[in-house]
Amino acid sequence: MTSKVDVEARKRAIEVIKAAMRELVEQIERGEKPTLIMPKRTLSNTIYDVKQKILLLGPELQKRSFTDINESKKFMQTILMASIIFNALQNNEYPTIRDLYYRGKHSISYRSIDGKLVSENTWDEQRESDSVIRDLEVLLAVLREDLLILSKEKGKVVGNLVIRSGDDTIDLSKMGHGAYAIEPTPDLIEFIDVDAEYVLVVEKDAVFQQLHRYGFWRKHRAILVTSAGQPDRATRRFVRRLSEEFKLPVYILADSDPYGFYIYSVFKTGSITLSYESERLATPSAKFIGVLMTDIFGDEIFRKIIRNRDARKALEELSPGISELKPKQPYLTEAERANFIIKAKTKDLERAVELVGYTVADVCIEDKEAKNRIKRKEGLTGYPWFITPHWVRELCTFFNTLSKLEIEAMASKGLKFLADKYIPEKIASGDWID
Amino acid sequence: MTSKVDVEARKRAIEVIKAAMRELVEQIERGEKPTLIMPKRTLSNTIYDVKQKILLLGPELQKRSFTDINESKKFMQTILMASIIFNALQNNEYPTIRDLYYRGKHSISYRSIDGKLVSENTWDEQRESDSVIRDLEVLLAVLREDLLILSKEKGKVVGNLVIRSGDDTIDLSKMGHGAYAIEPTPDLIEFIDVDAEYVLVVEKDAVFQQLHRYGFWRKHRAILVTSAGQPDRATRRFVRRLSEEFKLPVYILADSDPYGFYIYSVFKTGSITLSYESERLATPSAKFIGVLMTDIFGDEIFRKIIRNRDARKALEELSPGISELKPKQPYLTEAERANFIIKAKTKDLERAVELVGYTVADVCIEDKEAKNRIKRKEGLTGYPWFITPHWVRELCTFFNTLSKLEIEAMASKGLKFLADKYIPEKIASGDWID
Repeated sequence: MTSKVDVEARKRAIEVIKAAMRELVEQIERGEKPTLIMPKRTLSNTIYDVKQKILLLGPELQKRSFTDINESKKFMQTILMASIIFNALQNNEYPTIRDLYYRGKHSISYRSIDGKLVSENTWDEQRESDSVIRDLEVLLAVLREDLLILSKEKGKVVGNLVIRSGDDTIDLSKMGHGAYAIEPTPDLIEFIDVDAEYVLVVEKDAVFQQLHRYGFWRKHRAILVTSAGQPDRATRRFVRRLSEEFKLPVYILADSDPYGFYIYSVFKTGSITLSYESERLATPSAKFIGVLMTDIFGDEIFRKIIRNRDARKALEELSPGISELKPKQPYLTEAERANFIIKAKTKDLERAVELVGYTVADVCIEDKEAKNRIKRKEGLTGYPWFITPHWVRELCTFFNTLSKLEIEAMASKGLKFLADKYIPEKIASGDWID
Repeated sequence: MTSKVDVEARKRAIEVIKAAMRELVEQIERGEKPTLIMPKRTLSNTIYDVKQKILLLGPELQKRSFTDINESKKFMQTILMASIIFNALQNNEYPTIRDLYYRGKHSISYRSIDGKLVSENTWDEQRESDSVIRDLEVLLAVLREDLLILSKEKGKVVGNLVIRSGDDTIDLSKMGHGAYAIEPTPDLIEFIDVDAEYVLVVEKDAVFQQLHRYGFWRKHRAILVTSAGQPDRATRRFVRRLSEEFKLPVYILADSDPYGFYIYSVFKTGSITLSYESERLATPSAKFIGVLMTDIFGDEIFRKIIRNRDARKALEELSPGISELKPKQPYLTEAERANFIIKAKTKDLERAVELVGYTVADVCIEDKEAKNRIKRKEGLTGYPWFITPHWVRELCTFFNTLSKLEIEAMASKGLKFLADKYIPEKIASGDWID
């Protein structure tokens, strides 16, 4: 019933788990205490690799010893999860992380040293079992998708791209008005043929529908992808593979707000809490094409701020070269701005501070009340990949205007404007942020 | 660039708007006050049609007169929206409801009678412009999709079904591990060929992925659809068309909780606030295949309650025949129940009361504390299509156990169990609720 591709993936996954478990058996046979050694999945062991431009796990390792009372529960959870996944693989199953949680959830009863009957749950919350799955991913150096663990999947794609998935060959330029919903295991896709100049990833599904229907990808020879909000793993891996295997430029089109900027960041650099995935899921060459704050306001606001000597000094120190950025014209008129922009909420403000840190906020926010809305947390110095002249200019404009804008507003200026002017013009002139 | 189908749909839509506007012009030419007449979209004018088994708008009409000071703003908003949509149609655009909001959003300045400059916004919130679009739908007797208004779309499908969408012919049995993402205008799809015995709609995308990958639809000759949560309009219309045009039975597989039951209700009967759509979006023959409360607990709990004479009398009065339901065995063992069920939250409880009213809750809830958790609102007598013996038994079991269960828990008993036993056995034995 299942595809050849899956049969082979299954075999590979079984071997990977076997090898890891064989090691444990050998430890026991050698009379050693069974111990798992794996990279440490902590924030302190998460490193931004400036050269590769992605988040990675650092060199720190952690041990899980069966005989250490502090580690034995985690050790047993890991082995339990490995055995459940192993069984699922052998039984032709396709578990999800949710049902793995259910599969393993039970109480273990035993007698303590003083003879009392004690009961302990394997895990209570899915948070716990998910964490164990992540441990297994770093222990085995695979992604959970390699173990044929499935998940819900929001990503869609259309364009001049022929793929092989399962036992089928699928032409993604022949999807009618619909689209191809990406599979949860995109590493099993084989790319057969591609005829495109770039990949455009649209945050909003509705805008994807508009551009698709308008014939954007055909006219501009693009592969059109939507993440339908925060991108899931499969969409990220799919985009990364397009970038890597065909050397196609990847442009991200998202709302002009800190959430939109963060979506770009997840595609490009990886997710901060799951840095071990980045090596395979991140697309370090991805560019943010818009909507930029300066697409809305131009650079006038920023230039006004930087005319102040202290402000310029502070920002130059943080982000050298920021006072020499090329000038930038807005795409919106005064009247359009008035109708299109939305007031930023406190959450947007907080997310923006997370991206570039307090210094930029303090220098750029003129409104006193807005300044007071930011709760100070220690150590928020911003993410290194956002402390660049271009991004600081964007965020500074955000802090000063406390406004945001949705892609839909750009579409409302006319689909022709969005599809035939805004996007292609920005690509042609390099008006994006790397 | 755009498909022939769209070109024709565009022409039809333009004619529909023209005809309605021509009527207005004729009113003016006759010296009458321009007035729009349309069905009233209020809860009080929403009727459950017992024969058709769907929600419909009743016979009440409302007038919107340009010269009535209370109605003139709404009148103007309606005309403004009609003209924006008309322009979009003529310009080959595909607006979304979000960008229609932006397109129309602006301030109108005028001098009041006493000479003051006054400024009025066309609309402030999308809620307002959405409501105007709904007015246009009932005024023109079309769905917004007929006006080529697009929206985000979550629904996916795979199975032995060949469709024509846009200019392409697409075989939905050749999607590999991925799926076909349904277009936002499913009325423009042409069904070419189908070879299936029924349609299975799965609430959860992740479970859809599992069943798809397992080969469920091929083995059991089903068309497999997911709504990925609350169904959107396109998914509902797509399912309705499969039911209507091929006379295929439609089974809904959702979580066993009041939200899952409500998803079934939206597919089957329609959404309460948008009853005018039901005539085309609802699938009155849809059946809830599970997960039933009695699949988890059997009918023991219910039988215990109904052994009490007063309880039986009260429930029989509400739902005649309820004490003669066929006995029902659970699909789960005691141990599985212990690991799989989740405690219901206050929100679940409230939603359940919405479905069947206070009487059932009062009779079936034994736990005093739980009883106090329900906030009393007037007039919650339940929805008529839930006041049936089978549903009352389900909700009664829910109220008594205050438990719920996800489909994933069923999958965790083994994908084989879910795909080859639970679903086919229930279909074969008619163990679903109509």
